[in-house]
Amino acid sequence: MRIQPLSHIPDADDLRATHEAIAPLIHRTPVLSSRSIDGIAGASLFFKCENFQKIGAFKMRGASSAALRLTEAERSNGLATHSSGNHAQAVALSAKLLGVPAYIVMPETSPAIKIAATEGYGAHITFCANNQKAREETLEKVVAETGATFIHPYNDYNVIAGQATAAKELLEQAEGLDAVIAPVGGGGLMSGTALSTRYFAPGVKVYGAEPREVDDAYRSFTSGRMQQNASINTIADGLRTNLGEKTFGIIRQEVDAIFTVSEASIVDAMQLIWERMKIIVEPSSAVPLAAILDNPAVFAGQRLGVILTGGNVDLGKLPF
Amino acid sequence: MRIQPLSHIPDADDLRATHEAIAPLIHRTPVLSSRSIDGIAGASLFFKCENFQKIGAFKMRGASSAALRLTEAERSNGLATHSSGNHAQAVALSAKLLGVPAYIVMPETSPAIKIAATEGYGAHITFCANNQKAREETLEKVVAETGATFIHPYNDYNVIAGQATAAKELLEQAEGLDAVIAPVGGGGLMSGTALSTRYFAPGVKVYGAEPREVDDAYRSFTSGRMQQNASINTIADGLRTNLGEKTFGIIRQEVDAIFTVSEASIVDAMQLIWERMKIIVEPSSAVPLAAILDNPAVFAGQRLGVILTGGNVDLGKLPF
Repeated sequence: MRIQPLSHIPDADDLRATHEAIAPLIHRTPVLSSRSIDGIAGASLFFKCENFQKIGAFKMRGASSAALRLTEAERSNGLATHSSGNHAQAVALSAKLLGVPAYIVMPETSPAIKIAATEGYGAHITFCANNQKAREETLEKVVAETGATFIHPYNDYNVIAGQATAAKELLEQAEGLDAVIAPVGGGGLMSGTALSTRYFAPGVKVYGAEPREVDDAYRSFTSGRMQQNASINTIADGLRTNLGEKTFGIIRQEVDAIFTVSEASIVDAMQLIWERMKIIVEPSSAVPLAAILDNPAVFAGQRLGVILTGGNVDLGKLPF
Repeated sequence: MRIQPLSHIPDADDLRATHEAIAPLIHRTPVLSSRSIDGIAGASLFFKCENFQKIGAFKMRGASSAALRLTEAERSNGLATHSSGNHAQAVALSAKLLGVPAYIVMPETSPAIKIAATEGYGAHITFCANNQKAREETLEKVVAETGATFIHPYNDYNVIAGQATAAKELLEQAEGLDAVIAPVGGGGLMSGTALSTRYFAPGVKVYGAEPREVDDAYRSFTSGRMQQNASINTIADGLRTNLGEKTFGIIRQEVDAIFTVSEASIVDAMQLIWERMKIIVEPSSAVPLAAILDNPAVFAGQRLGVILTGGNVDLGKLPF
């Protein structure tokens, strides 16, 4: 199956077509609730559990959406990306499921467990120095040698359309929501969440949540001009990235507000989810709950959809 | 609602009546699978997720089953037990849901988090020295003073009937199983699992799994005579108890085999469940998977129901 590549902001039909196309490659993840957390929050929370997604994170949606938009000829040359995290595994598994090669550029400092997971999906790994320039140059070389197509982790409408399907499902699974809240990193999930909510549940608010230590999205949103993070000093390793132009364009237009939270709030919210829900989520997943608990005046009494982005954590390095 | 107290081994109708009666007080927990763990085990595993049960463990089933068999007069005097673990919380929550008092005797060395959880359900806590004699004497005194009814954690047909409902649900949720495997501590869950399987899925095997360090059930089962543990030296804190006479009677009759596993196998299996399934289970829950992975000659190619008993772990003391 192939769907048309997108060179515009995805519309409602694009999202429907994307969801139908990627359905065989992803899980329709469950939505869970916790009376105990609801009691603490004074609100009704509906957690979309992308920690149970294939490869353990929502990234599988965007990678498969982009892969399914390549021509047969493009696809047969393979998929490529640079990443040390969930996107690498998502591209590797998408390639495996489509029967084509994956070429992943990873920093030589990547954790052994992430290297092993990516290799486990049959990807070819090329190591590089641990900086952005080395990643991009190495990727360029790999692409030139193989003819593989680079799948960007977020700044690509084809990827955004895939990430949008998480909120689309959430809105189908939990009715009568007042708002949907997602964390913001590069903005792929956030912009997709905003689009799905606008199209499929027009009255529902869309909020972003971001670690205060890497608040480029908050500052960009507030100032109307793209800002950069000065550091990457957050435990929420999935959210250290700056917005891209495409994701910022959508977020600026469609998101109602972005909340920032402290590192302590993130760890507390993560521990609360682990202890009360008995599920494993990565720190990035806890950022929206941290925002809800920190802002009772905004959220009390509401029905809130919360996207738990993933569950890939190093069990040897927990913050508790 | 009240159901009749049991002074005999529960029959199929007793289990059906128990299940119907406790249904409003418990969760019908989901059954999850993991392709990745199936691949490692070379078998198809269906995990009954009692870590998502109320109070985070299957103990809620047995405690509520026993509580619902008291007369109005008995019930109004309250429920009592001695426990530092899941059973204390299960008795406390059962009492709360029924609107009656709970009196819990806990060793003064109990973790603060467990004391807080039990207090959170509104129970009256009496502390005692950390040994069996002090527990029993303190409980006797509390019962004499209050008129509350002691709910035994396992050696009670009313409790066994409640624990049996976990396997009853599992057999309804996962069809065509070859065997059901549960961990063995005091034997309440194991004997209940055996009864449900014999009654509701007669051709299906029933296996127990036990830490080698506390293998009283294995030795009792093999020798035909009740044996005691020489130590409690296992990470699986829910399984340190010896069998009771009632649970041993059922296990001896109805269980097909008991497997013992090393501490290292338990930790490995626990880590596998956390990493691949993204759910939090306590060490006791990992014992059946450890037995499956250690015995491929027995289990390969089979469809296996596995009871994950609970998810209450101290996140500050993980074995990884």
